[in-house]
Amino acid sequence: HAETGADAWLRYAALDAAAARRYVNTLPPVVVVLGNSPVEQTAQRELIRGIRGMLGVTLRVSSTVPAEGAIVLGLDPAVRKAVPGTPAGNPLAEDGYALSLRTAGTARHLSIAGGSERGVLYGTFALLRKIALGEAMEALNEHSAPYAPVRWVNHWDNLDGTIERGYGGRSIFWDKGVVREDLSRVSEYGRLLASLGINGCSINNVNTDPRILTAEYLPQIARIAEAFRPWGVRLVLSVDFGSPQRVGGLATFDPLDAGVAAWWKAKTDELYRAVPDLAGLLLKADSEGRIGPSAYGRTHADAANVIARALKPHGGLFFYRGFVYDHHMDWRNLKNDRARAAYDNFNRLDGQFDDNVVIQIKHGPIDFQVREPASPLFGALEHTNQAIELQVTQEYFGQARQLVFLVPMWKEALDFDMQARGAGTPVKALVAGKVFQRPTGGFVGVSNVGLDANWLGNHMSQANLYGYGRLAWNPDLTSQQIAAEWTRLTFGNDPQVVQTIESLQLKSWRVFEDYTGPLGLQTLTDIVGNHYGVSVEASERNGWGQWHRSDEKGAGMDRTVATGTGYAGQYRPAVAKRYESLATCPDELLLFFHHVPYTHMLHSGKTVIQTLYDLHYDGAVSVEGYVNSWKLLKGRVDERRYAEVLAQLEYHAGQAQVWRDAVNNWFHRASGIADAKGRVGHQ
Amino acid sequence: HAETGADAWLRYAALDAAAARRYVNTLPPVVVVLGNSPVEQTAQRELIRGIRGMLGVTLRVSSTVPAEGAIVLGLDPAVRKAVPGTPAGNPLAEDGYALSLRTAGTARHLSIAGGSERGVLYGTFALLRKIALGEAMEALNEHSAPYAPVRWVNHWDNLDGTIERGYGGRSIFWDKGVVREDLSRVSEYGRLLASLGINGCSINNVNTDPRILTAEYLPQIARIAEAFRPWGVRLVLSVDFGSPQRVGGLATFDPLDAGVAAWWKAKTDELYRAVPDLAGLLLKADSEGRIGPSAYGRTHADAANVIARALKPHGGLFFYRGFVYDHHMDWRNLKNDRARAAYDNFNRLDGQFDDNVVIQIKHGPIDFQVREPASPLFGALEHTNQAIELQVTQEYFGQARQLVFLVPMWKEALDFDMQARGAGTPVKALVAGKVFQRPTGGFVGVSNVGLDANWLGNHMSQANLYGYGRLAWNPDLTSQQIAAEWTRLTFGNDPQVVQTIESLQLKSWRVFEDYTGPLGLQTLTDIVGNHYGVSVEASERNGWGQWHRSDEKGAGMDRTVATGTGYAGQYRPAVAKRYESLATCPDELLLFFHHVPYTHMLHSGKTVIQTLYDLHYDGAVSVEGYVNSWKLLKGRVDERRYAEVLAQLEYHAGQAQVWRDAVNNWFHRASGIADAKGRVGHQ
Repeated sequence: HAETGADAWLRYAALDAAAARRYVNTLPPVVVVLGNSPVEQTAQRELIRGIRGMLGVTLRVSSTVPAEGAIVLGLDPAVRKAVPGTPAGNPLAEDGYALSLRTAGTARHLSIAGGSERGVLYGTFALLRKIALGEAMEALNEHSAPYAPVRWVNHWDNLDGTIERGYGGRSIFWDKGVVREDLSRVSEYGRLLASLGINGCSINNVNTDPRILTAEYLPQIARIAEAFRPWGVRLVLSVDFGSPQRVGGLATFDPLDAGVAAWWKAKTDELYRAVPDLAGLLLKADSEGRIGPSAYGRTHADAANVIARALKPHGGLFFYRGFVYDHHMDWRNLKNDRARAAYDNFNRLDGQFDDNVVIQIKHGPIDFQVREPASPLFGALEHTNQAIELQVTQEYFGQARQLVFLVPMWKEALDFDMQARGAGTPVKALVAGKVFQRPTGGFVGVSNVGLDANWLGNHMSQANLYGYGRLAWNPDLTSQQIAAEWTRLTFGNDPQVVQTIESLQLKSWRVFEDYTGPLGLQTLTDIVGNHYGVSVEASERNGWGQWHRSDEKGAGMDRTVATGTGYAGQYRPAVAKRYESLATCPDELLLFFHHVPYTHMLHSGKTVIQTLYDLHYDGAVSVEGYVNSWKLLKGRVDERRYAEVLAQLEYHAGQAQVWRDAVNNWFHRASGIADAKGRVGHQ
Repeated sequence: HAETGADAWLRYAALDAAAARRYVNTLPPVVVVLGNSPVEQTAQRELIRGIRGMLGVTLRVSSTVPAEGAIVLGLDPAVRKAVPGTPAGNPLAEDGYALSLRTAGTARHLSIAGGSERGVLYGTFALLRKIALGEAMEALNEHSAPYAPVRWVNHWDNLDGTIERGYGGRSIFWDKGVVREDLSRVSEYGRLLASLGINGCSINNVNTDPRILTAEYLPQIARIAEAFRPWGVRLVLSVDFGSPQRVGGLATFDPLDAGVAAWWKAKTDELYRAVPDLAGLLLKADSEGRIGPSAYGRTHADAANVIARALKPHGGLFFYRGFVYDHHMDWRNLKNDRARAAYDNFNRLDGQFDDNVVIQIKHGPIDFQVREPASPLFGALEHTNQAIELQVTQEYFGQARQLVFLVPMWKEALDFDMQARGAGTPVKALVAGKVFQRPTGGFVGVSNVGLDANWLGNHMSQANLYGYGRLAWNPDLTSQQIAAEWTRLTFGNDPQVVQTIESLQLKSWRVFEDYTGPLGLQTLTDIVGNHYGVSVEASERNGWGQWHRSDEKGAGMDRTVATGTGYAGQYRPAVAKRYESLATCPDELLLFFHHVPYTHMLHSGKTVIQTLYDLHYDGAVSVEGYVNSWKLLKGRVDERRYAEVLAQLEYHAGQAQVWRDAVNNWFHRASGIADAKGRVGHQ
């Protein structure tokens, strides 16, 4: 059958005969599910589907465990009871699972035990993944627990069916102002999410239409929740802070007004009647024109707590986005700095947020640029729950048209040591609440899939959704492990295919950086437009604050404490010291932290300007190479995907040249310094 | 060239052309080592050797980092200084390493940074392993730290060159009472150990010849230390507790005698003059005829501390084996129980050992049997350092003649939750000192390699040494991961070879259990002889205490608190409760904890006797299958190893039948119960 990409990494393609036979000989031919919950039933169905696809055999369903053995699915205590002689082990974490194959007498049991119903499903997907990857089962005995409780995705879908920063077609949830009649794609999406352990999903844009909270929408939203429920994915709604006034008809939305608090309480109770397992609510306030507590001189904590308290009795969480900044900043004032905003807004409120509030912080201080340091806010909050917001949809990364694998970039942020309590406090541990013993926290990915058959507009971008989910479950996985897994699951186990695709993916972020904004310049795109094409000056001389301050004399933004905006001082001293000094600031972030002349010598022994020129040529050459590598896979990848990816890469190679020339010409003109290799302006 | 097995998993076989080209394009062609220490120099040489072997190119050595980039080896701070723009990261743990590939300007640097000189070497081996496994390098950014500080091997070599329980030829260290002239094999062995992160090695039997501490031996021992030193492996000596008297000429070896203490101090100072980096000393006392503190009514703590205090100023550790028991126990007393010994001897001394003493505890309470519960002593000691002793040499596992991969068995012990402070305290965390914040602890493997080309007497047993080392570095690796790594490194990446060998290895321990001692009977071998052949009664009616108490009426040893020896009560209550009750004790340990009639019904719904019969047939059939699987690899594995392993497996299959019939006939005769399938006694 034609590979449309719809099944993504869950294709369950038939294994070769020898491998299939080996599994058929090892796995019990019977499946027993011990619980009646919809999620456990889903697990059983998925197991049968996967085994049938990969091994060509259909498991027999039994309601009791036969003496000769079975694959037994269920909650941990039920499995211990049902499978003879399962020894005492560690109790499983919530949503965790244990896989084990054991013989008892002459029987052979493969148990999939979950710490929750979701854990049973996650364990089932893990088992199927092992089979698809060709891993041996003979001594299977594995425990796995999620790194953090929050593993969510967000969607920026508008009620009319468009998606802000979505590049894979129209909304799977919404069309023409109502929830779609046919939600089969929502259910398929739930399956993809569950296979990664993702347990929450928001369905409407953070730039929210307030009508979402009207009575008219509740039964529609409940239908989406229903489609997700068998996959263990809980619904999340974005809300508008003005709702009490705009929807509720109150005269005010002041969070300290008793009537407003009562309105939120009543509205939340109503929501939970429609969706009893609603995971929580999400708010973007006082940012990019959204209204917020500043209208009444209230704090973000006041705003968050009034809604959080309404959610509390239902066990819901309230996510407050840390992406708050003034987009009318005076660009002439060299002390102004948008990068400071998240810390300046939230650090002083640390300790004032209720225990079911989570501050959702973008991984860098600006906005998903090609290179940013990790946000200092992660290292600052000690008494407040946090989540890291990672963007899966490639807003600033060539959208659906260029190949950029974001996992290596995310890993750098997640592994970065904020030195928040001495050394050894990487961002991942902070957001998971492990450093300051917070009750909750974790990971949020802005997914923005759409109705396109392949979800994200192209086949290769699926690796970002896969990688986000795998990191949310276990951020200690390496980029290489994730790329290898994804490639094998998505394109099969042919070694040349695996090596080629893995290698393309792994280098792609650094290559993209080379020709779109190296040395910490950030992505030199039209930041006031669609965030796609090259536009070196679009970020300058306006209030949006994505300035790189390049002119005839030099480039970069001085964010030091000594002479700049002071942003570097928002980090803990050991980190701040490193960024503050030209001697220790890494080259890749040089222009993010410092303004230097074009002739400034990098640690590499080359000037800034020549490095800019060279990297742009290097990047374009690398993308050219993508095309050649891909062509060697002809006949090894199914025709449809082969042709679609080839077309994408050929287009991508052209784009890299356009970027190269536009950026180099701009800096050539600005600096007046010739390219030592004589290329810029001449070819 | 013929594959002798001498290079084990460090063959550096040439990769196929496409894969090699990919690495050649990615890796910088120059290597720079920043330090002058022998270990760092070793790392550089090993890197050149590995790259040359696998990729066919020779790295250029440079003393400074060239602008276009290099592979840079060194201590973490030196690498940060030398490689432009290396960002601030987490400080590395001792012996840990970080690998990263980064571009700075147009240069490309691959850095191997170590938290110690050893860490640099370990990182180099890790990089070479990645290449051999075909892992992509493009976004390389990996940190790794050892799970525990102690990662040692022991050798039971006698000074005459024989090895107690060694099956791979004569000693690589000793011959005819002196250290060998040619120590090239010691150096090669150091390389194997270093590739796994093993940092200590004892060179003489725990059943020690006291002469080891005489002046005559010191310069010889120093030569072995010298051979190991470039590989970061530190020497350990086994000592005899009677040494002050036997070697020193004192009238006593009473540990509380001041003259004895002074003797140990002077002797230790002398040792450190000969071997300044000696890692420590090891003692077996009051066990199996070895003398010990009981001669003077002193405690094990008195004995340990007198030597530990002599080691203390030199930073040396003192290992005291927990393997202490009475081998003249009255077998007629049903309350006697050798399994109790380690706990009974050491638990009451908890808190009395100095901080540089480590109690070295065998993984189970008896002696490396095919199935034992984890020793309760791990869960008992709160104020004493521990190490787990795992046996790599296959004493009770078919020696060099049968294929048994021990990693799955070790994993069960390491992952077993002792519930020492509530749930979540697996044995691995306890021995690493993570639960009760101990200053040191870890892993000891009894390796017993010999002069045979393949080190262990056969090719497949190398997987146990590899697996031990990998677990000592990271016990969270799965058995499957370890088997897959080892197979690829040792036999190459042909998928059919990998799948077949991985699968053989992974199932082999359970299969061996099936025909040698299932249901917790322990290995039914000649325990008073060479521990190889089948001998069901050898353990009974003698003082050695490996009783299984099988007779006409039933089998198994009652170790319950209610009616037996009380051993089950040595575990913390949650664990003890599970083993105490027939209803919850796992079948696989049933006869270890309970005496039951042959007609007792297992959780599997089958009787004990029929299960014994069936498992023995199952096991023999499985081994028969090994031969068939292996034969499918003809032409895919080099001829020499193909033939050698085939011969081993054919012999193994015959042995399994001998075991099957001997054990089944014995139980048939004893029980008088016929095999329901009519096989026993008839074929």
